[in-house]
Amino acid sequence: MSVIGVLRETAAGERRVALTPDVARRLSDRGVKVLVETGAGRMSFFDDAAYTAAVVVTRDEIYAGSDVLLCVRRPDDLAAARPGQILVGLLGLDPNGLNGVTAISLDRLPRTLSRAQAMDALTSQANVAGYKAALIAAEACPGFFPMLMTAAGTTRPAQVLVLGAGVAGLQAIATARRLGDQVTGYDVRDAARADIASTGAAVLDVAAPSAEAAGGYARDLTEDEAGAQSQGLAAAIPRFDVVITTAKVPGAPAPLLVPAAALAAMRPGSVVIDLAAGNVAGSVAGARTLTGNEVTVIGAPDLASTVPVAASTAYARNLLALLTHLMPHGEPQLDLDDEITRAVLLSDREGARP
Amino acid sequence: MSVIGVLRETAAGERRVALTPDVARRLSDRGVKVLVETGAGRMSFFDDAAYTAAVVVTRDEIYAGSDVLLCVRRPDDLAAARPGQILVGLLGLDPNGLNGVTAISLDRLPRTLSRAQAMDALTSQANVAGYKAALIAAEACPGFFPMLMTAAGTTRPAQVLVLGAGVAGLQAIATARRLGDQVTGYDVRDAARADIASTGAAVLDVAAPSAEAAGGYARDLTEDEAGAQSQGLAAAIPRFDVVITTAKVPGAPAPLLVPAAALAAMRPGSVVIDLAAGNVAGSVAGARTLTGNEVTVIGAPDLASTVPVAASTAYARNLLALLTHLMPHGEPQLDLDDEITRAVLLSDREGARP
Repeated sequence: MSVIGVLRETAAGERRVALTPDVARRLSDRGVKVLVETGAGRMSFFDDAAYTAAVVVTRDEIYAGSDVLLCVRRPDDLAAARPGQILVGLLGLDPNGLNGVTAISLDRLPRTLSRAQAMDALTSQANVAGYKAALIAAEACPGFFPMLMTAAGTTRPAQVLVLGAGVAGLQAIATARRLGDQVTGYDVRDAARADIASTGAAVLDVAAPSAEAAGGYARDLTEDEAGAQSQGLAAAIPRFDVVITTAKVPGAPAPLLVPAAALAAMRPGSVVIDLAAGNVAGSVAGARTLTGNEVTVIGAPDLASTVPVAASTAYARNLLALLTHLMPHGEPQLDLDDEITRAVLLSDREGARP
Repeated sequence: MSVIGVLRETAAGERRVALTPDVARRLSDRGVKVLVETGAGRMSFFDDAAYTAAVVVTRDEIYAGSDVLLCVRRPDDLAAARPGQILVGLLGLDPNGLNGVTAISLDRLPRTLSRAQAMDALTSQANVAGYKAALIAAEACPGFFPMLMTAAGTTRPAQVLVLGAGVAGLQAIATARRLGDQVTGYDVRDAARADIASTGAAVLDVAAPSAEAAGGYARDLTEDEAGAQSQGLAAAIPRFDVVITTAKVPGAPAPLLVPAAALAAMRPGSVVIDLAAGNVAGSVAGARTLTGNEVTVIGAPDLASTVPVAASTAYARNLLALLTHLMPHGEPQLDLDDEITRAVLLSDREGARP
C-alpha cells in the first residue's frame, strides 16, 4: 500500500494545507495510507482531529514513511527527503535545490489541455486570489462599490479597472460586478478581451495589438507596443476609483502597467492592488502604502493563502485529480510518454528533466 | 447673510466630515456663507482646495464667525462655542455638557416621519455600516462567500446570519446576498421580519413573540421572552459561518445575542461581527479577537467612519435637508411648533428641552 504524507507548510505567512480532511478520506477510500503532519491544517482551520481517515504524525515520520510527499509551496527542509521520493506541489519552475527528489511541479501543468483542468492548481489559486482582490479593494475604498439609492439621494457606483484578464483578473471582475460596481477590463490578448466582454464588463481599448504566446499566456511586448500600451493606460487610469492589476508574463518580470505618473494623476482615496508584484510603481508585497496624493497602493502577490479554506479545498481537489492520474492503481507510475506526467516532472533523482 | 461653519472632527479615529464640497456649494448657491476648518475633509479625501465654494479658515475663526456650527460627532472643545450658537450633528441624547449652545441632535430625529427621511443621518450612516460589515465578514472568512463552480468541483456558499434587521442589518443582508452567500436574518419585530423576507433572505424562527416599541425600535424583552430567544439563537448560531449582529435598543445596553456558549459551539474559522458593541460575548470595540476554538470576533461599532467618502456624502445630504428645513429663508428659524424641529432640539441656552 502506498503511503502519502502531507507536510505542514514552512513558507512564512502560508496558511494553506495541501490536503483537506475530505480529500484525505477519499484517498484513504482508494486504498492509500495518508499521513498528516501535526498542525498541517491548523492555519486553514482543519485541526488534527478532523483528519479522521489519516494518521497524524511528526514531520520526521512523514519524511521517513511516505512514498509521496504533498505540499503547497516548496518545503525549506528538503535535505530530510530521500532521493527518489516523490514530492508534489507548486514547486515553481527551477529544477535546482530539490535534493534528488522526484519533483512534480503543478506550476508546469499544461493548462490548455482539457483533461488537465481538474488538476490545475494555478487556476484554482488564481481564482481565490482574484476574488479576494475585489474584496480588499471594496474594503479599502472610501466610497461604496454599488449604486445605492436612499431617501437622501443616490450614490454613483465605483469605477473599477482590472488589468490582465487571466483567471485572477476575470474572478476579480466577476466579484466586483457582484458587488455592483462598474468594471472595465484590459488585456493584451484578444482572447482575454473576449473573456472580459463575456462577463458583461467593458473592455478598455488602448489601441495596442494582441500579444498572445504559447499556452494561452501573454508574450512580452515589443518596445513600440509597450509604449502605445503605456500611453493608453496612463490616460485611462485616472478615471478609475480602483485599479486591480494581475498581469504576469511567465519567465519574465511582471510588466509595469501603472507607473508613478499614472498614480500621481489618480484622485485622492483611489485604491490600486497589485497581484503580480510588479505591475504598479512602488508596490510592496504584503504592504499598504499611501502615495503623496493619497492613493492607497496594496501589494498582494499571495492572496490565495489569505482565504485558506477555499484555497486549500480547491488545491486538495487538484491534487486528488493529479494523484489519480499519477497513481492509477494506487502505486506511483510515472509514465513519461504521458503528456501531463512529462510536463509536470520538474526533476528526478538524476536531476532536471527537459 | 447667515454663516455656517464646518468643524474638523475631534473624536479619535473619526474620518468623516460634516459637509462635502458639493453640499457646501449648494448651500453657497442658496446665499449662505460657508466656512470650513482647515483639514476638515482631509480624512475623507476632500482636501481644502476642493471646497471651492467655501472659505477655509482656522478652528478659532469657525467658532468666532459662524451662526451655525456643523459636525458629525460632538466636538471636544465646546467651551469655545458661544451660548446661543447653533450646533448641528449626531450629538447623542444627553443634553448635558453642551455649554449653552443651541444643540440640534440628529440622534433625536423622528425617523418614522416621511418628510424627515432625507434628514435621517442615523439611517444613512447605518446603511454604510451594514455594507461595510458584510465586506469585513467576507474578507475575514476563510472560505468563499459565493458558490463557485470550477473544473475541480463546486464550493458551497457561506451561510450568513444577520441578527437585527434595522437599516444596518438589512444592508448587511443585501450586501452579503450580492456577494452570493446564503443569508438568514432575525429580528424581534414582526415588521422587520417581513423586511428580511422581502430581501429574499431566509427568516430565522426562534419561537419568540414580536417585540416592537414606539418609533419602530425594538423594546426590551421580558425575562421569559429573552430566555426563549437565547435558547433559539444558541441552537441556530453554530450552523453559520458568519454572524453579523446589529441589535440595539435605544436608551438601554445592547442585548447579548451571542453568548460565550454559542461562540464555543461554532466551527473553527467562523466569523462574528458585533456592530452594536454588546451583542457578542467578549467583543472589543475596534478589535479582532480569536476565541479558543478559533472563531474570529470583530467589535465594530463605528464602521460608517471607515467608508468616509460614502458616509460623509450621505451625511452632508442629510444636513442639507435639515438645514433647508431649519433655515427656510437663509436664516435659522427654530419653530418649536414644528414636529421635526421640536424633536431634534436637544438643549438650548436655558438647558435641556423636554
